[in-house]
This record gives sequence, structure tokens and C-alpha cells, in this order.
Amino acid sequence: MKYFYSWFLFLSLVFASTAQEIHWENTAPGVWKGTLGEAEKYNLLTASGAIPNFTALTKLGKPPFPMSKDKISGRLQDGKTYLQLPLIKGEEIYGFGLNFKTIHQRGRILRLHVDHYGGQDNGRTHAPVPFYVTSEGYGVFINSSRYLDIYAGSGSRLDSDNPAEALDRNTDPLWTATPYSDAVEILIPAKGVEFYIFAGPSMLEAIQRFNLFNGGGPIPPRWGLGFTQRVHRLYDQKQVLAEAEEFESKGYPLDFIGLEPGWQSKSYPNTFAWDPTRFPHPEKLIQQLKDKNISLNLWINPYVSPEADFYNTLKPYYGSHTVWAGAVPDLSIPEAQALYWKTFNKEHVLPGVSGYKIDEVDGYDRWLWPDVARFPSGLAAEQMRQTYGLLVQKQSSQLFRDQNRRTYGLVRASNGGGVSFPYVIYNDYYDHRDFITALINSGFSGLLWTPEARASKSAEEWLRRFQTVVFSPMAMINAWASNTKPWSYPEVAEEVKEMALLRMKMMPYWYSAFADYHFEGIPPFRAMQLESGFTLKPQGPKNELTDLEENPYEEAIKKEITDQYMAGPSLLVAPLFAGEKSRSVVLPKGNWYDFYTGIYVGNGEIITVEGRLDQIPVFVKDGGIIPMMKSRLHAPGKGERYDLEIFHYGEAPSHFSLYDDDGISYDYEKGHYSWREIKVFKGSDEQWKGSISPAKAQKPNNIENIRWVFMTEGNGKNPLK
Amino acid sequence: MKYFYSWFLFLSLVFASTAQEIHWENTAPGVWKGTLGEAEKYNLLTASGAIPNFTALTKLGKPPFPMSKDKISGRLQDGKTYLQLPLIKGEEIYGFGLNFKTIHQRGRILRLHVDHYGGQDNGRTHAPVPFYVTSEGYGVFINSSRYLDIYAGSGSRLDSDNPAEALDRNTDPLWTATPYSDAVEILIPAKGVEFYIFAGPSMLEAIQRFNLFNGGGPIPPRWGLGFTQRVHRLYDQKQVLAEAEEFESKGYPLDFIGLEPGWQSKSYPNTFAWDPTRFPHPEKLIQQLKDKNISLNLWINPYVSPEADFYNTLKPYYGSHTVWAGAVPDLSIPEAQALYWKTFNKEHVLPGVSGYKIDEVDGYDRWLWPDVARFPSGLAAEQMRQTYGLLVQKQSSQLFRDQNRRTYGLVRASNGGGVSFPYVIYNDYYDHRDFITALINSGFSGLLWTPEARASKSAEEWLRRFQTVVFSPMAMINAWASNTKPWSYPEVAEEVKEMALLRMKMMPYWYSAFADYHFEGIPPFRAMQLESGFTLKPQGPKNELTDLEENPYEEAIKKEITDQYMAGPSLLVAPLFAGEKSRSVVLPKGNWYDFYTGIYVGNGEIITVEGRLDQIPVFVKDGGIIPMMKSRLHAPGKGERYDLEIFHYGEAPSHFSLYDDDGISYDYEKGHYSWREIKVFKGSDEQWKGSISPAKAQKPNNIENIRWVFMTEGNGKNPLK
Repeated sequence: MKYFYSWFLFLSLVFASTAQEIHWENTAPGVWKGTLGEAEKYNLLTASGAIPNFTALTKLGKPPFPMSKDKISGRLQDGKTYLQLPLIKGEEIYGFGLNFKTIHQRGRILRLHVDHYGGQDNGRTHAPVPFYVTSEGYGVFINSSRYLDIYAGSGSRLDSDNPAEALDRNTDPLWTATPYSDAVEILIPAKGVEFYIFAGPSMLEAIQRFNLFNGGGPIPPRWGLGFTQRVHRLYDQKQVLAEAEEFESKGYPLDFIGLEPGWQSKSYPNTFAWDPTRFPHPEKLIQQLKDKNISLNLWINPYVSPEADFYNTLKPYYGSHTVWAGAVPDLSIPEAQALYWKTFNKEHVLPGVSGYKIDEVDGYDRWLWPDVARFPSGLAAEQMRQTYGLLVQKQSSQLFRDQNRRTYGLVRASNGGGVSFPYVIYNDYYDHRDFITALINSGFSGLLWTPEARASKSAEEWLRRFQTVVFSPMAMINAWASNTKPWSYPEVAEEVKEMALLRMKMMPYWYSAFADYHFEGIPPFRAMQLESGFTLKPQGPKNELTDLEENPYEEAIKKEITDQYMAGPSLLVAPLFAGEKSRSVVLPKGNWYDFYTGIYVGNGEIITVEGRLDQIPVFVKDGGIIPMMKSRLHAPGKGERYDLEIFHYGEAPSHFSLYDDDGISYDYEKGHYSWREIKVFKGSDEQWKGSISPAKAQKPNNIENIRWVFMTEGNGKNPLK
Repeated sequence: MKYFYSWFLFLSLVFASTAQEIHWENTAPGVWKGTLGEAEKYNLLTASGAIPNFTALTKLGKPPFPMSKDKISGRLQDGKTYLQLPLIKGEEIYGFGLNFKTIHQRGRILRLHVDHYGGQDNGRTHAPVPFYVTSEGYGVFINSSRYLDIYAGSGSRLDSDNPAEALDRNTDPLWTATPYSDAVEILIPAKGVEFYIFAGPSMLEAIQRFNLFNGGGPIPPRWGLGFTQRVHRLYDQKQVLAEAEEFESKGYPLDFIGLEPGWQSKSYPNTFAWDPTRFPHPEKLIQQLKDKNISLNLWINPYVSPEADFYNTLKPYYGSHTVWAGAVPDLSIPEAQALYWKTFNKEHVLPGVSGYKIDEVDGYDRWLWPDVARFPSGLAAEQMRQTYGLLVQKQSSQLFRDQNRRTYGLVRASNGGGVSFPYVIYNDYYDHRDFITALINSGFSGLLWTPEARASKSAEEWLRRFQTVVFSPMAMINAWASNTKPWSYPEVAEEVKEMALLRMKMMPYWYSAFADYHFEGIPPFRAMQLESGFTLKPQGPKNELTDLEENPYEEAIKKEITDQYMAGPSLLVAPLFAGEKSRSVVLPKGNWYDFYTGIYVGNGEIITVEGRLDQIPVFVKDGGIIPMMKSRLHAPGKGERYDLEIFHYGEAPSHFSLYDDDGISYDYEKGHYSWREIKVFKGSDEQWKGSISPAKAQKPNNIENIRWVFMTEGNGKNPLK
């Protein structure tokens, strides 16, 4: 009995001893840092070097701490840090980076781990950003470079204030496989952690604060919003030029061409040197393309072939393990960075290459360095894995920044802290629906994602895929393996061309949306849940277990809306997928109008859209203003003037802030940009009128003439063609 | 420049400083323990309490350390322990517990984590035993209760003696996505580890040593090898009895009945109390079944309903988190064990229940306690997860041992250390082929597995499934949800009955096979790779990447033999699956004979077997002796005598060690068993003859008459019916 009590005392000790105080700091208006234990120095923010935009954060106001601080608790246990954040009944959770199948995250268990996406939303993804927002209007960011175990409202604690109720599975129809949980619980494998709380009061504002705290989104060079074709991996210099000419002659827009692995003398691992047979005169090619207003992007992965010129120089800085027998530079070390990027600068950037596609910085485990690898900086393999995507984005974009040239490239991995990098994430997974879900989720986590088109089983699928890249951060065909062209499916070649031209036409709208991302933190592509008036929650079957026979514990998947999203301030995009003749669209409250005709379609209801092959269903909210330009084959160059066509939809007077700058440099960071206020209103004659404020003196002003189109006044004909 | 060198020195320091000496100890003949750093006290062997069988290990001989010790290295890094073991070219790896799809493990990456099997062999499985053997004839066991990261020959190190070669993916057809790796690398999240090396020289001997080091396999009570039916979850007492009677009247064998959750007043979480409506007189039921020679097994999961009698008593010993709102007892604490099992003993074991089916001790994450949970013992949630299956097996089987009664039950999780527990693993996954692969893999890791039949889409599938459970450690139908009976598919009801009777007929063979498991560590069910003369290696396509378009990194799956296995000393089982009219069978070198007819079928070749609906293809190696008894409905009871029918196959004279004991108690541990030597040889008259040595005085001797059947002398007719 004595033994019993001594145990008991010991137990109480174990349970109590490790609770830890959280140190709070108000780091910016609406942003609080909590620190627990000894947080590691190398984290997502130090790896990315993200610099908060305090000016923009201040503009957003000074809301109070969005919950009761004493509901947040943590402790050290088993050499790790445990963090607990509260949830209330009905509170929905979104975020945790680039998920491909689900939007609602409450109840899910994730191990955030940078990786190739393996077909399950389990935290292994290209950008498993440890940031979430909830429908209660706040955000939480765990600034850790470790693999994080997240229980997003799945664990039920004995000590809960709202404990789950024990029911009888034998006969109680209310029994559930997933009892109630009142907390997000996180395990950080480190002796401490710092984390941030972002106030709302709306989810969108919490996200804006997160994005601005990370420096705001990038503004791509204007050409980055044009069309891009990635050519076959074994193309040579002549074929690249011929392809550019073919786009021109066929009348398809083209702003930049991407070269795939074959531009190098050897790849996987890489020499980073032009292949002398396929690309004997790269500088000439760059100039010839430039003359056609076309930029050039180069595929790389970062792993160094023993045959690379600088292989030996970098030897002290390689990790213990190789990737495809290539050495892995420890890019967290300044000396390694300097030695490594020197070649890129000299051989690619200075001669005029416009950007990179940085492959294979995500995973998967079978190819990347293992978790047992060591790095000369002393960082753990896990930390390197979580941040390598950030490091290559930061360091490569700096090469262009040093030339005061913007870049816009592709990358396969990112993480928290990477909001401001001018990179769009892509991967090898190719499920069209899941690509759209990823696009939706990207907006919760400060990410950009392209649902690239590569090839298709049918002309219909080709067109449907193409329609969605046009409504994404990067309008791209990746033909590295397939050699597909926009016109490869003759049955839809004209429809594809029209879509590509629509992308160009909408460039002013997209450009302003990205400026909103940069200056206000508003994601250009984002979930319906961030749109006010959208209240639909996931629908679950009452009995969550599907099949007692085949798998008695398989849970039914809750139905949620994973296939429609907001693009820019006013557009609701509801893609059609191959084989679909019609689809339903959930309209938030407020009047909505057809993008192509201006016709009213509904208000706070679920409508059915009859599909047209040549159109992707797009809807505009009441008062939506879409500034467009004439269709063109290339983005306007620096100082090039263009005419504006301003489209207004619906019955509401409204306004739109039109952004402009030189389109290619970082001068906007020094104030060389303009915001011009577009207003649409009804005059005393009850006729729609529009006005635009002048550009301020010395500020960019590229607009020549303006045409106003009041769509809902129209005859229902499509004036966008 | 100075900075550069200081970095360089620092780096060398980081790389060198943490290498760690391994302390070696020869713990038993052919078994060595290596210790690195401070190994944790709570590990798989302390959790399971496994006691090595030194006598049997000594009998196996004293081979030398099976490799060069200096090829094994390790170090502490990032607060974890890193272990590296060598591989040579062509060396194949097997093991790592209950994998369902693959047998060869070289090149794979696993995170060993007790869990529900999720359809991928990634280390998350019901028994992710950290033990592997290689074709070089040795075994390695990591005695850790942590989640282990295993790189089983996948990482390529810069410092390798056999480094992978950098090739050019652009144009070199020899380029591979998976370059050569010369080591197994393991990350143990602890400040040290102990691990064991088991000598061969054959793989089977290494496995025998591993099994014997863990105490040897269990010998089930004789009834445990009979047939078992798990009845519908809401059956009441009368229905159970009626079912037993129906088996009897229809002539189907039945040795034990399993009750599913509805025997309890409440389940998920559990009261562990008989439901007063469905089971008003459990002791009477137990007696009525006993009178019919039928035992009773009870389903449980370990989680305690607040309505359980002892809920409050155990309060100091619950973990922080609940499972279906049930409390999780910390069964690593002796006081908790005593309080917890008291009820089981009093209410179930003492009244005569024969065993348990212990569910839900595996996962998955959505239901089990999260990794953030705390336990009063101070063990981490992760340690509890890895060992809970061991704890419940050990503690529940002890209840029966205390009564000197053997038990034979089911469990959903096990781990290294659990070899000797009388439990068979099962799960909810229901792919028939994968179930057979699991059966094959179970033999590499000291596990028993049943490919239980539950229900089927067709009569053919029902029969095919039934045929495989008959050639497995537990011949079971689990009708908890389906209420299926052996005769539920009338088209095959007779064939099913014949199979069930064959199981009974073969009982002496199975019983001796389990005795070999116990006394010599030879797995009763095991892979072809453990059979001498089987040399087939997996066949891989040259270009391992399958589809550049849909997923350019998807690897082709290597073809390996995952559907045939050895059962007992002489039988090769090659199941047919629903829809198969024929199949190929890989015969090891040596002559092989058809089980049913004794006809020669081949030698070291791949044969095609034309399927018969009523037979599962089984082959016997040359000289194979299969001792059988007459078909019967229940296993012989204690002291019950029976006739033996000894079948001999092929051309080779041979012998077989026949085991016998009282069939129900642990008296065999005190020497109360007999081994009788069966010999088959050709007499001077060139006629086959058989002999059997007498049982020693005072040793069990249950055999009455013996009939000899020389199958290959026969007329090709099937005498087994």
C-alpha cells in the first residue's frame, strides 16, 4: 500500500511538473508572438528572412487579442514541446498548407512534412505551412522548421471542459467513431517553440496579417502573368526558337518559355552548364527571344553533379548524403550560398535568363536526403527538408533582385515565411479536381499554385485543364515529356486560343490582384470561405462508418465544396471537368452575374450551370469591376501604353483600385507605382457612368484610352470574345 | 577568408564530434547485443518481459559474429541516435514486421509505427517489428519502443565505399531513379539504443535465434488449432448456443466461439460486464458450451467506460486522452495492471472463458490516444503506442497462465518481444491477396497472422478465403457484422465443410509445427525465401519510372512472389483467389509432389496449376511426412486417445518429430511432453515402411493405432477426403 501511494505521488509530479509559461509579445498591430521554452534559432522566419510589412499591418488596425490567452497552454514533455489551442463548438479550421483533397481541417491529424504529394492530405505536401485560420476569425502560425504533429481537433482529453460523451456502440445510434474534441494540439520536436497569433476579426483579415507579416505576396513582373510554355526536355536551341515563332504565327500569346532538364550537359544530378550540342549559343537564343518579347526560364534541381565546374570548391559544404548521386549543398551556410549561386549568376542571370523552375526540393523520401543525413551547418536533415524550398527561393530570387529585375518562377516546395517569394508551386500529381482544391487551399497559407496542363486523354480534358490555368497564378503548359502545344488538339485549338487571349485581356485585373496581395496581403486566389456571405459547412452522413464488412472503421468522407474559388476581388470561378455537362455552383449571399454576359444568376443559393465547351463558368459579384486590356500576344513592356476596357457587373455602384508600375523592376518598393481609383456609379440620368482618378505626378501611367462596358445593361451577348 | 576557415574547422568538428563507440556483449550463443549511448530502460523486451530460451539457443550452436563489427557504426545527432549497418551488392532484406504488399524490403523507407494498416507498406502496421534478416544470413533487432525511421538500403552517402554513380538522365539509358545504397540506416529518437545481431548462417537460423531469444513461439492449446466462429455482435446467449448446435448437427467442426462487442452492456468504450439482457447467465452458457467441447472467447478493447465498475478505482492511472471517450489505463504501471485485470479474472477467466480478442490496440491515429498524450508512468505516448499490444498480450495471457490453462486469442497489435504470446494478429483490411502476403511476412518477425474470412461477394471467393484460413495459424470466420456461417453459400457448403475437416485431420501436423516454433523457433508459416533451393529474386523493369506524363516520378513496382508460402516443415501452399482458373507456382529445387494425390509435379521450376474449386493447391517436398488424425468436430481433450494416419510423399526416406502433450496446460514447460520420431524408409524388399519411436515413460502418449499412407506409391487418387 505504501508503494501504491509513492507511485501516486510520483504520478502527480509527472503530470504537473512540466507545465510551462508562455511569454507573449505584441510584435505588430494584431500580431502576437508566444514563446514557450527555448525556441530554436533556426526557424521558418529566419530561414526565409521574411520581413514584416509594418506599415501595411498598421493600416489594418489594432484589434484585441482574439481569444482568452489563458486558453492557450503548453509544456515540455518527452523532450518535445506540446502546445494546446482552444476550439469551440462549430468552429471550422482551414489551412496547414497545400492540401489537395480537403478544405476543412477540423478533426484531422497531420504530420507537417515537406514532401511530394502522395495522394492523401496527411501533412506530407509541397508546402505544409504550419498556419491555420478558424471561422472564429484568427490565425495561428507555428514558426518551427521541424516536422510538426498536428491534432486539429481530434484528441479528446479527460480534463476537457467539454469532454466527449461515452456512448454505447452496441445499440446507440448516436455513437460516433470520432468523439468531440475541443482543442488543436501540436507536438513540436524541440525544447521550445515560438508561435504567432494573428487577429481578424474576419478570417480574411487574419490571413492578410499573416501574409503581411511575411512581407506580403510578390508582384510578378507583368510578363509573368502572360502565357508560358515549357518545351520538351530534349529540345535544342533551334527548336526553341521555332516554337516561339510558331506561337507568333498561329496567334497564341507567349510571354516566357521554360527549358527543361536537357538544356544542361547533364542532369539529375546537374552540371548547371549549357549542353554544348543542344545549346551552343545560349546568349544568342536569349537575345533572339528577347527581341520577340519572350523571356527564358531554366529548370534546375539543386543537386550538384561531380562534373559541375564548382563541385570541388563546394566540397566542405555538402551534406552527408547524395540525391541521385549528386551532392547536396548546405545552403544555410553563407559561404556555400556565395560559392553555389556564383555560377548561376554568371551563366544564367547576367546573360538574361528570367527565372528558374526549381525542382525536387520537396521529396519524396526515396530520392531526397534521408532524415539521418547530416549537414555541415549542424542543422538536422529534418530542418533542411522543411526549409530547402525557402532557401532556394530566397537565394535565387536575390540574384534577380541584385539586378533590379523581377523574376517569376516555379518551385516544388515552400513553407511558412515564403509568402513574398516570386515563385509558384507545382508538382507531378495530375488529378484535375485535386489541382483545383490545391489552388483553393493555397490562399489560406500564403502560397501560389498552378494547376499546370501537361497532356490530356481528350480534347475536352485539354480545354478544361487549359481553362483553369488561365484562372490561376501561372498560365502554363508543361510539355517537358509530352511535347504538347496549345493547339495539339485541333478540335479545341480555337477555344484554347481564346482562353489564352482572355488571360492576356484580363492582365490589368490580375496585376491589381497581385498588388493587393503585396500591399494588403489579400490572396489573389482563395477559398469561398473567405468570401462574406458564404456559409456552407461540410455535410456528413450521420453514421460516419461506411462498411462494417470490408473495413469496419473506414470513415465516410464528408461532402465539402472543393471545386470553386474566388479569383481577384470579384470573380467566382467554378471550373468544369472533363465529362461534366453541367455542375452546381454555390453562390454566396448577394447578387451574382455571369462573367460572359452580365446576366443575373442568383443570390445565396445553389445554382446549376449548363456547361459550354468554350467557357469556364465564372461569376461576378454585384458591383464587380474588371479592368481589362485588348487581347495581345505579349505583356506590355516597360513604359508601353495601352488602352483599358473597364467592365462593370450588376446593380451596385462600386469602385476598384487599379495598380500600375513599370512592370519589371523593384522600383515599386521605392514608391514608383500608382493606384488609380476607378468608380462606377449611376448619374442623375440613371445611366451608368465611370470615372478614373489620374495617376499622381511622377507615378507610372501607362493607360491611353478607356472604354466602359456596363455588362448587366447589355443584351446578354458576350463582349469578351 | 579567415571566416571561411573558421567555418571549415567548425564543420569538421560537427561532422566528427558525435561518433560513438558501440559496446558489444555476447548475450547468448549466436546473439550479440550492441549498445550505443544511453539506451532507454523501457524497450520492447522490458515491455514484453521476453525471456530467452538459452537451452534452445545453445543447441543451435555457436556461430561467429556474422559480419565485420567495424562495419556497424552509429552516433548521436540532433538528440537522436543514428545507426548504420552494412549491405553488400545483391544482399536482400526481409522483415520489419507485418507488411501486406511486399516481401523484399531492400531500398524501402519505413517509419515503424504501430497502426492500423492503411494500404501501404510504409511501416505503419499492426506489428512493425524492428527486426530484419538478410540473404547474407544474419538478423538485426532494434530493441526500442520508439517510432523508428528505417532507410533499408535507400540512402546514398558521399563517404560510401561503394558510392552511387552520377549518371545523366537526359540521355543515359542506365540512369536510375534509385541509385545504389550500401547500408541500412536507422534513426532512433532517443539518446541511445540497444540492438541485437543474430547469427545464421542461414536466414532461417537467424530467425530461429530471434524467436528463441524472445522465448520461442507459443504452443496453442490443442483446441486453438480447431475451427473458430465469431458470432454476430448482437447475438444473445440463446443464439450462441443454437449456433453451436447447428455446427454440430450440420457436421462442421467447431472448437471455440468468439463473442463480439454485444456481450458487454456497453462497448467502445467498455464496461467489461456481461449485458444482462443478452447474456443473463454467462456461467451457464460457458458450461453448456464446455459440455459440447467448445470454448468461449470474448472480444474487448481495453478502453474503460465511465460506467465500468472499476472506473473510479483506476483514475490515478489513466492517460491524459480518451479513446471513444473511454479512459486509457496506463498498463505499464503494476498497480494499474492489478486493478485493471482483477475484473477480467473474476468475471471471465475464472468462470471459464478461454481467451480474448483484443481490439483497437493498434490505431489508427484518429481513434487512439494522440502522440501528445501523457501517461502517469511518464512514458511517452509514442512508447505506449508501440508497446500497448505487448502489454495487453502479456497481462491477459498471464491470467490464464495463473490457472495453468493455455489460451489462444486474437490481438490487433504486437511488436518485437511478443513472439511467445499466444495471440494471432488480425485486422480490418480485407484484401485476400494482401492477407496472404501478411501471412508470409509474419514468419520473418515472430508473428502469427490469420487471413480471417468475414463475408464474400461470391461463393467462389468464400471458399477461396476459407481454404486459406485452414492453412493459417487460426482457422476463423469472423461474422461479427455479416453473420455469415461456413454454410452460408450453399453452392460451396460441402467444399467448405471438407476444408474445415481437413484442418482437423491435419491437427497433429500443425501441433508439431507449433512445437517446432516453441522449441526451435521455426515459424510454422513462413516465406519461400526461408526454404533452401528457392532463389527467385524480384524482377524489376529496367526503367523504373512508369509514366512521365501522369506522374513522372512514379516508380514501377517490382514483381515478386507474394502469394505462396511454407506451412509446417514440408508443405508449400499456393492459394487460388476468386476469379483465378489457374496460377503459377515457383517450386524450390528438389522434387515436389501434389498434396492430394502424391503425384510428382516438378523440381526447381515454375509450374502452372489448373485450379480446382474444391482444392487449395498444396505441394509436399520430397520425403515430406504429414501426420494426420481422423477428421473430427472438436480437438481431442486432455488424455483423449486417437488414431494416427501418417502420410509420406516422394522418393526420399525421411523422418518427422511428432510432438505431444496434454494439449491444454503449461505442464510442457516442466517437461511433460513427448517427441516421437517417425521414420519412413524402404525395407530390403524395396517396399516403403514406417516406424515410430515409443513415448518415453511418464510422457504424454495419446496415440492409439497408426495407419501408413505412402502417397507417391498410390494411384493418384485423393485419400484425404
